[in-house]
Amino acid sequence: MPNTITMLTGDRPTGPLHLGHHAGSLIERVRMQARDAERFIMIADAQAYTDNIGDTAKVAEAIPTLVADYIAAGIDPLRSTIFLQSAVPELVELMQIFMNITTLARLERNPTVRDEIKQRGFEKSIPAGFACYPIAQAADILGFRATHVPVGTDQLPMIELASETAARINRMAGRDVLAIPQVVLTSTGRLPGIDGKAKASKSLNNAIFLSDDAAEVKRKTMMMFTDPDHIRVSDPGKVEGNVVFSYLDAFDPDKEKVEDLKTRYRKGGLGDVVIKKELVAVLEALLAPMRDRRPDPQASRDVCVDILREGTLAARTRVADVLADVRKALGIFVL
Amino acid sequence: MPNTITMLTGDRPTGPLHLGHHAGSLIERVRMQARDAERFIMIADAQAYTDNIGDTAKVAEAIPTLVADYIAAGIDPLRSTIFLQSAVPELVELMQIFMNITTLARLERNPTVRDEIKQRGFEKSIPAGFACYPIAQAADILGFRATHVPVGTDQLPMIELASETAARINRMAGRDVLAIPQVVLTSTGRLPGIDGKAKASKSLNNAIFLSDDAAEVKRKTMMMFTDPDHIRVSDPGKVEGNVVFSYLDAFDPDKEKVEDLKTRYRKGGLGDVVIKKELVAVLEALLAPMRDRRPDPQASRDVCVDILREGTLAARTRVADVLADVRKALGIFVL
Repeated sequence: MPNTITMLTGDRPTGPLHLGHHAGSLIERVRMQARDAERFIMIADAQAYTDNIGDTAKVAEAIPTLVADYIAAGIDPLRSTIFLQSAVPELVELMQIFMNITTLARLERNPTVRDEIKQRGFEKSIPAGFACYPIAQAADILGFRATHVPVGTDQLPMIELASETAARINRMAGRDVLAIPQVVLTSTGRLPGIDGKAKASKSLNNAIFLSDDAAEVKRKTMMMFTDPDHIRVSDPGKVEGNVVFSYLDAFDPDKEKVEDLKTRYRKGGLGDVVIKKELVAVLEALLAPMRDRRPDPQASRDVCVDILREGTLAARTRVADVLADVRKALGIFVL
Repeated sequence: MPNTITMLTGDRPTGPLHLGHHAGSLIERVRMQARDAERFIMIADAQAYTDNIGDTAKVAEAIPTLVADYIAAGIDPLRSTIFLQSAVPELVELMQIFMNITTLARLERNPTVRDEIKQRGFEKSIPAGFACYPIAQAADILGFRATHVPVGTDQLPMIELASETAARINRMAGRDVLAIPQVVLTSTGRLPGIDGKAKASKSLNNAIFLSDDAAEVKRKTMMMFTDPDHIRVSDPGKVEGNVVFSYLDAFDPDKEKVEDLKTRYRKGGLGDVVIKKELVAVLEALLAPMRDRRPDPQASRDVCVDILREGTLAARTRVADVLADVRKALGIFVL
């Protein structure tokens, strides 16, 4: 196997990207573009359908939007291959093979999927596609022979299954057919919503989107949850749980300045409006260049679809090669 | 939807075909070739791997053999499209969609699969692929818009799931995207093994294969289980459970003669050797023309692979069209 680094990342297309995605993984993906590595970015539509088959319009709308968000965030299609999962049939062909060496009991042991099943109220009626999505994810990772997979801790059980699957195939084949993927734990914690809830998300309507215009960013920032006991400017304020400071921590490159603001806020005498205006400036410094990079809305859909088509072609070539090797290694008849 | 009859049949490639297959479905398939209908015959290798992933060599060997058996039995590739399931990725793409509208609980209610799980000792460790194979079968049937599916009673739960899936997709789409398949119950009962066991099968080593030569057919017929209490020729003999008469019933076109033999056998005075020689003649009348039709063993593999390639191309075109229509009907984004 070639000794190169191959990274696979991706997103479920269920809505536009927001600052939480940026802090959680986009910044890192853009940074990684400077490194000597292969990079694949998957729009995981087949996975999104496992719990959104009744809302395909949402997914369909989100797919080109996601590409536009990537370009805006600084992902360069010449350096990162952006592709659509469902348009790579070789991935589901690989999944079908892996389904024969993965038991339902093994799938049921996955704590993340167990949580998700509860969240979705699927207890009594788990769709087979949802139950099996970790196998699909193993196919995604192994189908690119990804060596490095940046994920949060909740995704560790998925990487574990992918590693087990690779090891199992290699053992059956008697040679190293598939790469055992390495986890790259993304260090950044979750970005809170502007309302102070633990997580920013589209469905909670508490996120700042990469595509928000300046007025909207300002509006959302000015209504951010801070410290409810910080009534007068002169009162001492709390920094912990204060969304403005969470965002400053995540996005202000001037850490010294942020520490200084925190000290003054804790002591009393620093008003919410001041720190919010500070944050607006920080976010604008981040988002204004994104607006410039974002494809022109008139042509956006076509541009994004073209990028996806090209990336998907490259992805298919790659996975077809791996699929052929897996079939050969297992002695599967090929026409 | 066009008002034509479309039939889908198939076999799992796990060994050569024997007279049990011929009595059970091949005769009917050959007979159907005279009718004005579309006919697809699937070599269900993807399904075979769901419980044979550790014995891919057996499946790989059986695939071209199966094509040769079909040709020998009188299947005409010009009138019946013979294709390889795993070489039609559109089928597993369709399955992936259906997996999102089929729950694990629904799959567990299938009594045939429950029996099969017990037979295979899978209770504690059901491979996901095996648990989901009825979804794959629904994709096979619906992917061809098959209107008529000839099956035995054990396959009724599969057709039920396929029908439910078609109805569900049509309801979601608000139009008739998929055909609801009709069951054609195959009337012939199971052919017993030459040892008197209920079922002839390769694994029980009690079957007469379509590819057996005349000496082998004679050898197997002469050792057939008859009536263990029919010691002397003059003894009255039993016809029920007597394998020779089961085979005569299945394969001798001269029903009157068979009834006459039964009467004489029951009365006493008709020896086993006589009825066995009679059966050898009947089987030879059936199998000798098959030997003539069978592709020359030297070239067989290439000939069979060519037939499969051509049929698979036609099958892909057909299923791709249905898959595109299902995606469109459900509002799934297509690149």
